[in-house]
Amino acid sequence: MRYLSAGESHGPCLVAVIEGLPSNLNLDREKINYQLARRQKGYGRGGRMKIEKDQVEVLSGLRFGKTLGSPLTLSITNRDYENWKEVMDPYSPEEFVGEGSGSQGEILTRPRPGHADLAGALKYHQKDLRNVLERASARETAIRVAVGSTARQMLAVFNVEVYSHVVEIGSIQSNPRELSPEELQRLAEESPVRCADSQAETAMIQEIDRVKAEGDSLGGVFEILVTGVPPGLGSHVHWDRKLDGRLAGALMSLQAIKGVEIGLGFETASLRGSRVHDQIYYDGSNHKYYRKTNGAGGIEGGISNGETIRIRCAMKPIPTLYTPLTSVDMMTKKSLEAGVERSDACAVPAASVAGEAIAAWEIACVFREKFGGDSMEEMVTNYHNYLEAIARR
Amino acid sequence: MRYLSAGESHGPCLVAVIEGLPSNLNLDREKINYQLARRQKGYGRGGRMKIEKDQVEVLSGLRFGKTLGSPLTLSITNRDYENWKEVMDPYSPEEFVGEGSGSQGEILTRPRPGHADLAGALKYHQKDLRNVLERASARETAIRVAVGSTARQMLAVFNVEVYSHVVEIGSIQSNPRELSPEELQRLAEESPVRCADSQAETAMIQEIDRVKAEGDSLGGVFEILVTGVPPGLGSHVHWDRKLDGRLAGALMSLQAIKGVEIGLGFETASLRGSRVHDQIYYDGSNHKYYRKTNGAGGIEGGISNGETIRIRCAMKPIPTLYTPLTSVDMMTKKSLEAGVERSDACAVPAASVAGEAIAAWEIACVFREKFGGDSMEEMVTNYHNYLEAIARR
Amino acid sequence: MRYLSAGESHGPCLVAVIEGLPSNLNLDREKINYQLARRQKGYGRGGRMKIEKDQVEVLSGLRFGKTLGSPLTLSITNRDYENWKEVMDPYSPEEFVGEGSGSQGEILTRPRPGHADLAGALKYHQKDLRNVLERASARETAIRVAVGSTARQMLAVFNVEVYSHVVEIGSIQSNPRELSPEELQRLAEESPVRCADSQAETAMIQEIDRVKAEGDSLGGVFEILVTGVPPGLGSHVHWDRKLDGRLAGALMSLQAIKGVEIGLGFETASLRGSRVHDQIYYDGSNHKYYRKTNGAGGIEGGISNGETIRIRCAMKPIPTLYTPLTSVDMMTKKSLEAGVERSDACAVPAASVAGEAIAAWEIACVFREKFGGDSMEEMVTNYHNYLEAIARR
Amino acid sequence: MRYLSAGESHGPCLVAVIEGLPSNLNLDREKINYQLARRQKGYGRGGRMKIEKDQVEVLSGLRFGKTLGSPLTLSITNRDYENWKEVMDPYSPEEFVGEGSGSQGEILTRPRPGHADLAGALKYHQKDLRNVLERASARETAIRVAVGSTARQMLAVFNVEVYSHVVEIGSIQSNPRELSPEELQRLAEESPVRCADSQAETAMIQEIDRVKAEGDSLGGVFEILVTGVPPGLGSHVHWDRKLDGRLAGALMSLQAIKGVEIGLGFETASLRGSRVHDQIYYDGSNHKYYRKTNGAGGIEGGISNGETIRIRCAMKPIPTLYTPLTSVDMMTKKSLEAGVERSDACAVPAASVAGEAIAAWEIACVFREKFGGDSMEEMVTNYHNYLEAIARR
Repeated sequence: MRYLSAGESHGPCLVAVIEGLPSNLNLDREKINYQLARRQKGYGRGGRMKIEKDQVEVLSGLRFGKTLGSPLTLSITNRDYENWKEVMDPYSPEEFVGEGSGSQGEILTRPRPGHADLAGALKYHQKDLRNVLERASARETAIRVAVGSTARQMLAVFNVEVYSHVVEIGSIQSNPRELSPEELQRLAEESPVRCADSQAETAMIQEIDRVKAEGDSLGGVFEILVTGVPPGLGSHVHWDRKLDGRLAGALMSLQAIKGVEIGLGFETASLRGSRVHDQIYYDGSNHKYYRKTNGAGGIEGGISNGETIRIRCAMKPIPTLYTPLTSVDMMTKKSLEAGVERSDACAVPAASVAGEAIAAWEIACVFREKFGGDSMEEMVTNYHNYLEAIARR
Repeated sequence: MRYLSAGESHGPCLVAVIEGLPSNLNLDREKINYQLARRQKGYGRGGRMKIEKDQVEVLSGLRFGKTLGSPLTLSITNRDYENWKEVMDPYSPEEFVGEGSGSQGEILTRPRPGHADLAGALKYHQKDLRNVLERASARETAIRVAVGSTARQMLAVFNVEVYSHVVEIGSIQSNPRELSPEELQRLAEESPVRCADSQAETAMIQEIDRVKAEGDSLGGVFEILVTGVPPGLGSHVHWDRKLDGRLAGALMSLQAIKGVEIGLGFETASLRGSRVHDQIYYDGSNHKYYRKTNGAGGIEGGISNGETIRIRCAMKPIPTLYTPLTSVDMMTKKSLEAGVERSDACAVPAASVAGEAIAAWEIACVFREKFGGDSMEEMVTNYHNYLEAIARR
Repeated sequence: MRYLSAGESHGPCLVAVIEGLPSNLNLDREKINYQLARRQKGYGRGGRMKIEKDQVEVLSGLRFGKTLGSPLTLSITNRDYENWKEVMDPYSPEEFVGEGSGSQGEILTRPRPGHADLAGALKYHQKDLRNVLERASARETAIRVAVGSTARQMLAVFNVEVYSHVVEIGSIQSNPRELSPEELQRLAEESPVRCADSQAETAMIQEIDRVKAEGDSLGGVFEILVTGVPPGLGSHVHWDRKLDGRLAGALMSLQAIKGVEIGLGFETASLRGSRVHDQIYYDGSNHKYYRKTNGAGGIEGGISNGETIRIRCAMKPIPTLYTPLTSVDMMTKKSLEAGVERSDACAVPAASVAGEAIAAWEIACVFREKFGGDSMEEMVTNYHNYLEAIARR
Repeated sequence: MRYLSAGESHGPCLVAVIEGLPSNLNLDREKINYQLARRQKGYGRGGRMKIEKDQVEVLSGLRFGKTLGSPLTLSITNRDYENWKEVMDPYSPEEFVGEGSGSQGEILTRPRPGHADLAGALKYHQKDLRNVLERASARETAIRVAVGSTARQMLAVFNVEVYSHVVEIGSIQSNPRELSPEELQRLAEESPVRCADSQAETAMIQEIDRVKAEGDSLGGVFEILVTGVPPGLGSHVHWDRKLDGRLAGALMSLQAIKGVEIGLGFETASLRGSRVHDQIYYDGSNHKYYRKTNGAGGIEGGISNGETIRIRCAMKPIPTLYTPLTSVDMMTKKSLEAGVERSDACAVPAASVAGEAIAAWEIACVFREKFGGDSMEEMVTNYHNYLEAIARR
């Protein structure tokens, strides 16, 4: 499975072409839209989310609600494009040049620290930073969420579910009691900051309000949980097939992510081996090996071990501040304040939803590799044969 | 650039074929051997490192010390293979079955927690866990270090250097004063635990001794520093081309790594935006943008920004303990102690060297993508043209 | 560079996402539309071409007529979709079932020989052959032509041009006198069968008329010529990097192509070595090696040698015949006539245009690999440096 | 599945690393050696084949004769390396410079027409053409044959067999009566020119003798037949997944191949549709669709249709002639005769064997993609489920 995504933040639309989904998967557009709506929620979002109400269109690969096995095209219209048509015109060779500071038509020449602006402008030989930031924008995560939703719908057939909750925003940490992934998800869904600990939730909201008032921004940490994954996805045989490597690479590519850890993650560094590793037991009645702990986060030797996959991602604070940072005007080389694009004060809840989608995609990929097949029927048969085979081992 | 690696821990050798190196690169075998020797050092290593003294052979792609542009074959003989010939015989269809518990010829049926053993046996339909663990073993990192060394030799032509030091072992953290990457490296090279802080070094050694005596093991954290990287490597335009994603994916695939962070990493989650992002300045005399801080760790928007690339990796304690963990015998399904393979008490210094190699490879790959060319001469010309072009921007 | 294409023949649209084009390429939508119009021409086309007048929209990656370096989305609306909305509805879970034999709403169960119908239905577990044939249709070549046009526009900056002409339709062969590629192209453009030999042209048209009247169909051979390719694209070092292999693979994937040859192709089999190989000369005033013959078709050892690249492709007759072939109804297993989808009597001229596009794409890919860079400016500089370097050799 | 191959013609060895083979495949080294021996036979081979008697070593991925699922390393020692050690020394930075014209130590500066020499030297910035020709040499096909042999051994478990025979050498064409693939193979194996038609065989041998005496060389055409392929390998859904495209690309990358055709190939161009396409019948007792003709060569719409896959490849005459062609000395730019490397007068039989191996590899790849799984046990189960499923359709 593979996909290419495309689209600028204020361009006509976001698009993805997905190649490799099995045929005869019941794909529900409303389930994709539901995921898109989840991404748009979250306390601390800025004005853009009020403009967009993302809806997907499936332009190929689907007929009567079932996949054909041919490439799927997903498209999300950027409603805001209506207001940006002149600035983002694909065709006119005459560049629109508006007036006034900060207006849409102006060439952007002051790179914002923490963004792709400066490095991207140098790399791609651009004078107008808009030519970089439009694509680098986290708006792109909308289409990744849509892509991930197709993966989730496939995984759901195999009882694989992907959850997430926010465990840290700024200085506030969540301390949910020992809750199941399902329970964590249920609570997170009800929380404006996706936090399953109501006390922490209140404090997080207060911190966001405070920081927003000061023109500053906040990052945080979210946790992804994938349940129902059979043992044997990914592989130890070659470094680029290891499931942990694939998940970490994909998640680190999510905008603003600066850290990824699996299971106990950085905590393992300070613990002794006898405290870290998950001892192995056998449940004779279900013909299944199991663990009582999950320090490994469901992956050993680059392979899923049958336990819940658990990943945490650290998100830096949104780099566009309303109290701008120091930068340089690339035309004049004079020191100036960085440009300001409309932005959020805190986007951790949204990133958490995007993280789910990314994890779902990677898990779906290794599922396809392990179970092969071209139709859902074939894949399901292969899947059950494997489960049966390992139950005898 | 791409490579495939191969080889079992006690098989005849480790091999890699590297495709895509430019021609006319002066490649020094002794420099590869030097890196292999660095990997074998480190306080807390076990007995295997006394047996092996790794030496590389270059079996293709090199003539009179220069690369030909054709695929390079690297091979490292496993000296220990002499003792394992019967157990690891590739050809004989008759499996050797020795006697006694724990001997080499016995079929291994007790999976070790924290290893690929169990998941790998289920996935690959294996009765003898040796068929999994031989490849999953961290012995594989030797060839990755060799591969990385070819990348480093190419990068050195462009003044890109890769360093590392250990910042945490067990409960001990290093607090090196504000040292340059070069200085950190110099001190780390002299330290048996690759630690640039001599006080921490002493404490780390004591902790290793203590834990070893108790049959337990330790993990830690190391930091990789890549200097001299020009702005513009990697790309924001597609998720799988982001440099941070690529580095994180590759490093997470290193045996026992459970966390990767870039720049401030997980710390960014608790800091405000105004404290995290690196303001931009311009050095008119050198025609260069620069920063006074490096919270981003040299990567913004998935692109190198010209600052030192800074990555930290968390390594879990070696999972093979001399005081074994509980496991299950896969034949009898009875609860038993996990098997014990010869192992180290702490391998963080070695992992740090492997991490350097992995980072070097990924950086070399994006170098090749950006500067193209088929010979070093062509690549160097392209590189200088780019530097000149961006100096005018 | 890479792209994914999508779209069913009677679905809403055809789409491609292209990743890896350099920034600052002047991309003219009208040049893409011009190529699309060329594909739709050709004596012997059926009714569909009267319905569609293909026009591309660029939905991402382009601003003010210049590429941004970010993924380009190309979309071509299928105008005919208006008539097929119920039959090709992506979403409604209720399948539309119309009445009468051969109507659009009927489930297709009689696979057509020569098409993907049967094998595709087995592979993808489909009852309704429409679920296969919609994607297998040569309608897909429209988007490949659009993709190829972006490649051509990039190549044109380097004076690389791609031409084609038809050399055989049915039993008629073209015998153009010794004409330059440019002259061949000029004549082909004026010919309804893309034939540069006016005598053969007349005979071809007569043969098409005759065959059409009999409810039969015709194939043929077209030749692609790529001029201005510098020596050194592709590589001998690894089989999957050979330029001839890449071109052959891509062209054989074009619908109905059953043979590909480069240079003298199959003719080389019957000639002696002394007659086949192109002797080498040196033009001192232009500092250039050259040949007086081009039996190699511009590629030696998998590398472009600086001469015109010359490829011929054999196209089988369109397999949908108005006088249908014998087939089997997959529901009843009874022998019946194959289904008939609207079709052309001869599509060789259109395939010839599609072939140009495919060749352009592959050449553009190896161009990007050799010259690297992220912007046109950088790529052009690297290109000139290389030309200078080889002029001194 | 993927592999990288490496090795120079007179370097120490040829190597391949294969990644993605299932575990528990019984892999017989002698079967690989048998294929290597087949490649070395053939009337018209030169002196090198007397020096080498190729034998493979499996250096990883195999234990007790069964694959482990981990990467397989294949190595073939170049026996001739003993005579070339000084000339091909990988390490010594001092280039060996011998004396006299044509001796091994001399720098080669006269590119041979028809070879990679000139284009490769320009591309890779080489003064000594040996740095190009060593890798471009068809000696590389030995390792591709070894790689293909592992694929064949896997395919044999699924009753897929790969055959070939020579149908043309120079002006002589084989006219075997209507023989089955097995019969063709049996006769070809007994023939010094792999020709199943004994009359043509005699004429071919005579033609080789004649041409050899004149210092010239001959090409030809061979046909590959793959039996037992189930319907549904490859795919119509995306151009780069089409089985015909993959086969053509891989085979065109074989040294000296200038044309590839599938089924009726170029002949289809001159036939009418009603004569080309294979009508569809149903065999109720075996629950199988079948054809009475095989013009498609076993592939329709880029998918195997269950019939024998039939491919023909045109090989140009070996370009190294003992009566050398005109070339240019790259140092002096003077017109001179091209250099002469030891060579064969006709290598079509050997290429035929190499072609089998290449086809086997590609078929094995699409097998792995369709049936997934990580062990032979799992793959076989999935395969049978699929066959059962399609028998009911």
